[in-house]
Amino acid sequence: MVAFAAGVDVGGTKVEALLIDENGVVISRTRRATAHHATTPPGGATADVIADALDELIGGDVALPVGLGLPGMMTIEGRLAYAPNLQSANGADFVSLMSTRRVGQRVVCANDADCAAVAEHHAGAARGSDNFVMVTLGTGIGGGIFSHGRLVRGQSGFAGEIGHMVVDPRGPRCPCGQRGCWERFASGAGVARLAREAAAAGRLPELVRRHGDVESIRGEDVTRAAADGLPEALAVVDEVGWWLALGIANLAAILDINRVVIGGGLTTAAALLIPSARSHLAGMVEGEGVRPEIEIVPAHFGEQAGAVGAAFLAGAIES
Amino acid sequence: MVAFAAGVDVGGTKVEALLIDENGVVISRTRRATAHHATTPPGGATADVIADALDELIGGDVALPVGLGLPGMMTIEGRLAYAPNLQSANGADFVSLMSTRRVGQRVVCANDADCAAVAEHHAGAARGSDNFVMVTLGTGIGGGIFSHGRLVRGQSGFAGEIGHMVVDPRGPRCPCGQRGCWERFASGAGVARLAREAAAAGRLPELVRRHGDVESIRGEDVTRAAADGLPEALAVVDEVGWWLALGIANLAAILDINRVVIGGGLTTAAALLIPSARSHLAGMVEGEGVRPEIEIVPAHFGEQAGAVGAAFLAGAIES
Repeated sequence: MVAFAAGVDVGGTKVEALLIDENGVVISRTRRATAHHATTPPGGATADVIADALDELIGGDVALPVGLGLPGMMTIEGRLAYAPNLQSANGADFVSLMSTRRVGQRVVCANDADCAAVAEHHAGAARGSDNFVMVTLGTGIGGGIFSHGRLVRGQSGFAGEIGHMVVDPRGPRCPCGQRGCWERFASGAGVARLAREAAAAGRLPELVRRHGDVESIRGEDVTRAAADGLPEALAVVDEVGWWLALGIANLAAILDINRVVIGGGLTTAAALLIPSARSHLAGMVEGEGVRPEIEIVPAHFGEQAGAVGAAFLAGAIES
Repeated sequence: MVAFAAGVDVGGTKVEALLIDENGVVISRTRRATAHHATTPPGGATADVIADALDELIGGDVALPVGLGLPGMMTIEGRLAYAPNLQSANGADFVSLMSTRRVGQRVVCANDADCAAVAEHHAGAARGSDNFVMVTLGTGIGGGIFSHGRLVRGQSGFAGEIGHMVVDPRGPRCPCGQRGCWERFASGAGVARLAREAAAAGRLPELVRRHGDVESIRGEDVTRAAADGLPEALAVVDEVGWWLALGIANLAAILDINRVVIGGGLTTAAALLIPSARSHLAGMVEGEGVRPEIEIVPAHFGEQAGAVGAAFLAGAIES
């Protein structure tokens, strides 16, 4: 396989670097823990980790293009304007930070969910769809929007912050300052919160029996039990799937998409959430009888979509 | 003034036809009541009214392009797929219907709010903005989205159905079948409903005194009293303004727009809602400190934006 580009998915917890061929097939990979200590200029600690991962992955090959998928609001110029899960890199210019660490290497930066959308559009589950939304489920919800075959970046590059669409103004407080953001319901945080609520309301008696008390039940426990077929756990996951469908219906009304690709780190949960969301979506979209069906499909590149898409962007496959 | 094109805004209540010059300045106009009786093929009664209005407006001049702004979900091919307020024209192909009534005339059809967005972008309040949303406030809420300088049509042409974004799943039932659609709160229907609720809760004592009882208070009464400065009425309008801001914040998170143009028939209310929505929007959008300000401005073409934009589209000014 011929190396096409390297892609790095920079998360709040880990940095994952991949070397891919032109079809997105992974040739080699490495992983580091993300560093969070403050530096001047911001982002230096993270840039050191990225450079270290690249040293291992591609050695001194600075002719290869490198793409970085970054977790936050990225300006069109490539600056990480706001990164709630990587505060030490708020305001960081990673192109500049990398230029001293990997002299001569072409580095392209973009929002991680936008990168994932690019990967799925070019060679994954959104191939052939010109109007789709990539939904990355993790602790929160990230988004990448394609309209008329092109990535929607918006005025400053911040488009796709779909997790902060408010779907219940009396809902739980979000770290962003609002109440009832979509990601409070239909993400990892949503599973955890709805699980706590269900346990407290006596709707998870078997799990409470297994874990000894209500407080020790976590989102992953519910997801695992649901994957094993426990009805009370499936009911909680189905509630999350209902919220997932609600947000998808909103995006469909606004954007008239015909596909939604579900990616991100919540792999086990997503496998259960997708059929649930599909069943609830029927009947949720205005004028449903006249619309083509909206498909909800898992990401072809799974958790690696961000890194693969960053590499595609660096290789200038899509803009 | 040289006639550039004719534009017809087809509403559930009235048909308004305008002859404009290339800057959107109105040369002449006429108006008819919309016809609703069923015909085969569908839409024939409405097409007769449109043809009659054109006969008066431009006589036998079939060389002039004509644009129709239609109230519902329009396919990219120009078919009115779903029109809740013009049921007799559900499924109608107005290009075909007009071809027998105005032989030889070029007729272009689009969604009315998309037309309004085109008008405002080309020569109105969205001039110079490549990423904006047109919000038309009437009984419901219509929308037209520009992204990267182009109208977002979506997969089938149905993009911009922003009024059916659900913002409160436990909210009031919408004719579309969902609960808590944005247009249940931030439109003419929203003013009427929130006014009834406020009156029933004893928050409109002066209006109840003036009108004799709670039941006879209408949305327009509250709007008028608010325009006159009555504090209890202003409080209701401000509640509607809060909901208007909430939906705008959602659209900003998804699309990263820098402008919102408010148009539609709700002119008096809009004059009060715009400052209210502006004040609430501050603090509602994620990462507000790093975003350019999102301006909320009234439509330059007011209620005529739909007809003017339809004419622009017919004249092939934007696609």
